Amino acid sequence: MIAIDGDRLLADLRALKQFGAHGSGVDRVALSAADLAARRWLVGRLQEAGLTASLDRVGNVVGRDPGARKTILIGSHTDTVPRGGWLDGALGVICALEIARAAREAGDKGAVGIDVVSFEDEEGTFLPFLGSRSFCGTLAEAEIAAARAEDGTGLAAALAPLAGETTLHRLDPTRHLAYLEAHIEQGPRLEASGRRIGVVTGITGIRRFRVTAKGAANHAGTTPMAMRRDAGAALIRIAAWIGDAFPGLAGAETVFTIGAMAFRPGAANVVPGEAEMAVEIRDLDTALLDRMENALRERVAEAGRGNVSVAMERTTEVTPTAMADDLVAALAAAAAAHGEEPVRLPSGAGHDAMVLGRVVPAGMLFVPSIGGISHHVSENTADADIVLGCTVLADAVSRLRKILAA
Amino acid sequence: MIAIDGDRLLADLRALKQFGAHGSGVDRVALSAADLAARRWLVGRLQEAGLTASLDRVGNVVGRDPGARKTILIGSHTDTVPRGGWLDGALGVICALEIARAAREAGDKGAVGIDVVSFEDEEGTFLPFLGSRSFCGTLAEAEIAAARAEDGTGLAAALAPLAGETTLHRLDPTRHLAYLEAHIEQGPRLEASGRRIGVVTGITGIRRFRVTAKGAANHAGTTPMAMRRDAGAALIRIAAWIGDAFPGLAGAETVFTIGAMAFRPGAANVVPGEAEMAVEIRDLDTALLDRMENALRERVAEAGRGNVSVAMERTTEVTPTAMADDLVAALAAAAAAHGEEPVRLPSGAGHDAMVLGRVVPAGMLFVPSIGGISHHVSENTADADIVLGCTVLADAVSRLRKILAA
Repeated sequence: MIAIDGDRLLADLRALKQFGAHGSGVDRVALSAADLAARRWLVGRLQEAGLTASLDRVGNVVGRDPGARKTILIGSHTDTVPRGGWLDGALGVICALEIARAAREAGDKGAVGIDVVSFEDEEGTFLPFLGSRSFCGTLAEAEIAAARAEDGTGLAAALAPLAGETTLHRLDPTRHLAYLEAHIEQGPRLEASGRRIGVVTGITGIRRFRVTAKGAANHAGTTPMAMRRDAGAALIRIAAWIGDAFPGLAGAETVFTIGAMAFRPGAANVVPGEAEMAVEIRDLDTALLDRMENALRERVAEAGRGNVSVAMERTTEVTPTAMADDLVAALAAAAAAHGEEPVRLPSGAGHDAMVLGRVVPAGMLFVPSIGGISHHVSENTADADIVLGCTVLADAVSRLRKILAA
Repeated sequence: MIAIDGDRLLADLRALKQFGAHGSGVDRVALSAADLAARRWLVGRLQEAGLTASLDRVGNVVGRDPGARKTILIGSHTDTVPRGGWLDGALGVICALEIARAAREAGDKGAVGIDVVSFEDEEGTFLPFLGSRSFCGTLAEAEIAAARAEDGTGLAAALAPLAGETTLHRLDPTRHLAYLEAHIEQGPRLEASGRRIGVVTGITGIRRFRVTAKGAANHAGTTPMAMRRDAGAALIRIAAWIGDAFPGLAGAETVFTIGAMAFRPGAANVVPGEAEMAVEIRDLDTALLDRMENALRERVAEAGRGNVSVAMERTTEVTPTAMADDLVAALAAAAAAHGEEPVRLPSGAGHDAMVLGRVVPAGMLFVPSIGGISHHVSENTADADIVLGCTVLADAVSRLRKILAA
């Protein structure tokens, strides 16, 4: 058992919050001065805890257990979205710091040590999962050269303050036996069910589609109904079909969304000549995603046989990533040992654990988000839930060290 | 019979087109230098034809038949939309000039004369139907003071070049026995039916509604379907209902349009927290408009009983204006006399005849719009159709002069 210090955990979380503090939240976007200062502070905290820590050329911070040849890697990210919350990412990194620190203080030197990581730019200010992809060796130099922030700043220029760093942290499959990440849920399910611990079964796949219709823009007063080529009406019919048909195709955990819809020219007195909508589907099951996508393609093809042309393109595809069964089991057992029946749920949001989980066994633990809110200054989790989450994660780490050492 | 000169008609139309010529179209927005120059040119042409003509303080041009105490008023407007077509409005004014001129040349001095008018700002650069409303006495001074163009220019400032004009032309019910207006159809019906003359039965009423939904914007990946308050999905259901239910409520000539639809924040990965759409209905029958509006109100109220609030407000109401039966009959008889079976149709677009028709018997004749196009530089009508339209209108004027003199 690793006995974490809940007060110290919360104090470090609040210390980290000062970097980029923005009202009740934090503005600490990747590679900003606040982000780099927070990462240098983290290096110091890891070193104080006895780890061999450094910042690398892409902004990743890794603290290595100096006495171990095999470790469990624990962490998340310390960058935020603009004007974001104080816990997203930060929670997982400080939990990792606290667990590694508590383990070393206990003199608990098993065969499997603990490494800590804070990945850079999980939020995609420049390039989503920049840090975890660099760490896993799946990031091409050309992507770094091409990446730009919304304000036009190039990633290469933003990395200039790190040009003096000689390290590039990389996953070592012989050392890193597993990856664990604690995170706020960013959704309402734990709170709604009155539970305090979520164990993630996998990170859902995402498919996004742009559906576009092209007809003819005409005077809404002088164009008879039968002579119209109304692109808006064509998309409304498809959108309504999605609402009617998708529930029958979806699984229990599937989510689907029409997040955007626009008609052009978009005036009350003009029949829409063009229309566009964004459709998104998320699920853990690739076969199910295929079925829903194919059904939508058939419906779009059918709609395009009228006097409005309708087309559909896939704009995003993220494949699902399952969490490792033994890590899920260890997290669930640790929760139960603390009197908590965990909610097993997919993560509908992407996390560094998705990138890591493709190359190493990965597991995630969720703590409740108050009101389900994240990416906003009002994002929060009860202190007791933060401490409980870290306690359960520490317990799971203890269990896994024994299993992995065997 | 008034024998119009088709070549002279076309020559005057092309002369007018030079004021504000813009490629194949015209940019002659109300009270621009081009618009005022065109109006002063028109005053000259009317005077040459023997009418007593002047420009007034709001830009209206009226040419009065000097020998008549009772007249039929004929005309339209010579202002255009920005980068508009060469015929919209101009056609009706030049037809009126030609008919008055031809009647005078024929020495045809019946008891009922012909007055000619070009109203200002029919297109609403500053204030829709500025000229015809001023003429009919339904325009308040406060409206002039408040009106502004999209670029911020105030109407009062734009009227400054007319400050020296002492006249304010007004409808005289004892003099103006009827109002007739020729216009391009601005729609596809004449062309599609292979007919050359349209007789307008009335100007449709317009009701516009803004339907808004308010739910909660949430992460599209982490918010389960059952816990969503999706404002976009709520509007899609109402929009689909409109497509299904309105045809059963509509009459043969009703048109209805969802011209705009927007979701906020409008991102593929966010459940829409707010959504808005613009719904428009046009018909000649007020009771039918009431029924359709009430059905929509019921459907909106029903939708608002879920976990998304839905509201609806009427943003525009234009009451229908019937054209006078005897003028419709005279126009139809004149068409038939020239071998043309006219299409009787409502005007789905507003016209000065709508303003005039509320205070004096009014009638309208349509000529075909090639491709149904208007308010665009490619707006056009075959020369032969322009001449035929003026010929039929002149014939109708002859018939009405006899009827009205009786």
